Amino acid sequence: MERPALLIIDMQNDFVCEGSPYRVAGASAVIPKIQEVLAEFRKRKLPVFHILRIHRQDGSDVEIIRQEKFKKLPFAVAGTNGAAVIDELAPRSGEFILTKTRMSAFIGTELDLMLRTLGVTTVFVTGIQTPNCIRTTVFDAIAYNYPAVLVDDAVGAATEEIHQANLRDMENIGVRVVTSTDVPGFLS
Amino acid sequence: MERPALLIIDMQNDFVCEGSPYRVAGASAVIPKIQEVLAEFRKRKLPVFHILRIHRQDGSDVEIIRQEKFKKLPFAVAGTNGAAVIDELAPRSGEFILTKTRMSAFIGTELDLMLRTLGVTTVFVTGIQTPNCIRTTVFDAIAYNYPAVLVDDAVGAATEEIHQANLRDMENIGVRVVTSTDVPGFLS
Repeated sequence: MERPALLIIDMQNDFVCEGSPYRVAGASAVIPKIQEVLAEFRKRKLPVFHILRIHRQDGSDVEIIRQEKFKKLPFAVAGTNGAAVIDELAPRSGEFILTKTRMSAFIGTELDLMLRTLGVTTVFVTGIQTPNCIRTTVFDAIAYNYPAVLVDDAVGAATEEIHQANLRDMENIGVRVVTSTDVPGFLS
Repeated sequence: MERPALLIIDMQNDFVCEGSPYRVAGASAVIPKIQEVLAEFRKRKLPVFHILRIHRQDGSDVEIIRQEKFKKLPFAVAGTNGAAVIDELAPRSGEFILTKTRMSAFIGTELDLMLRTLGVTTVFVTGIQTPNCIRTTVFDAIAYNYPAVLVDDAVGAATEEIHQANLRDMENIGVRVVTSTDVPGFLS
């Protein structure tokens, strides 16, 4: 039997809130969809992972190719409000918070180890943004043998066209793509 | 100073040759372009990595979501002609051959360790196919702090449209995209 976990990726103030220079255009629209999916996982007491990009203030842990950008205008700095999870998706006691410094939730984190320890066999992926943190996490999940499920309307990008192009590539390798309303059916 | 290495990914008979059910449509067209780039790296005695997907005959090392497909029609089986590098790009003595069982050349291989040992600071990426093995390798290179260079015309996909959509995503995160004729300029 499948045992699913929910991954909510990068839904942090710096990447979601109006007025933030690092805001992903498609982020706001997915909030209510992630809330729906999250409610289903909470109702069933299934594992929930809030996965956050968090950087040291000096940027020493940022990807080399992004360090200039970070120096000019830091993002997701540890301890700041910008790095915090948006209020609408605030983590509850018993949920896992994992921090990362890269796009994929599997690089340099305890995610794989935690999933194995919990006996998780598949991950439902939500958050932002489709071509980067979402897609690298999905491809790594497949590589580590967790058949990933992408929740289409709970994942956002800068444009709908970028979102769709990435969805097609993921479907082509066998990623299951569902919508938030399908999720309860998969969990029952 | 930058010290580059060349990665040639999955240019194996099963994925390239006419008549193979696993042939990538865009593979043949990139052969002469990879040959040009390879000649430049050989001329300068710079490191060359032939990176190959190789599976055990029983398929036990295939990604779970691909195991059914493999059982029906195996691909890249160790020791078969299908798994061998195409004649046009046959490895020479002194070049590295790394085998992998996943898309990214960094997963479960000694690539990162070899690049560090050789003092390599950047990788030029060629081969097939753009949305899968190429892109996961490029994103992992960025994550591991090798500012990757994608050689546009030496990388192929099933369709030009898929190729271009992926190129755009990679350029958006700061991947340098060049053509094979630009390569000598970067190496001098």
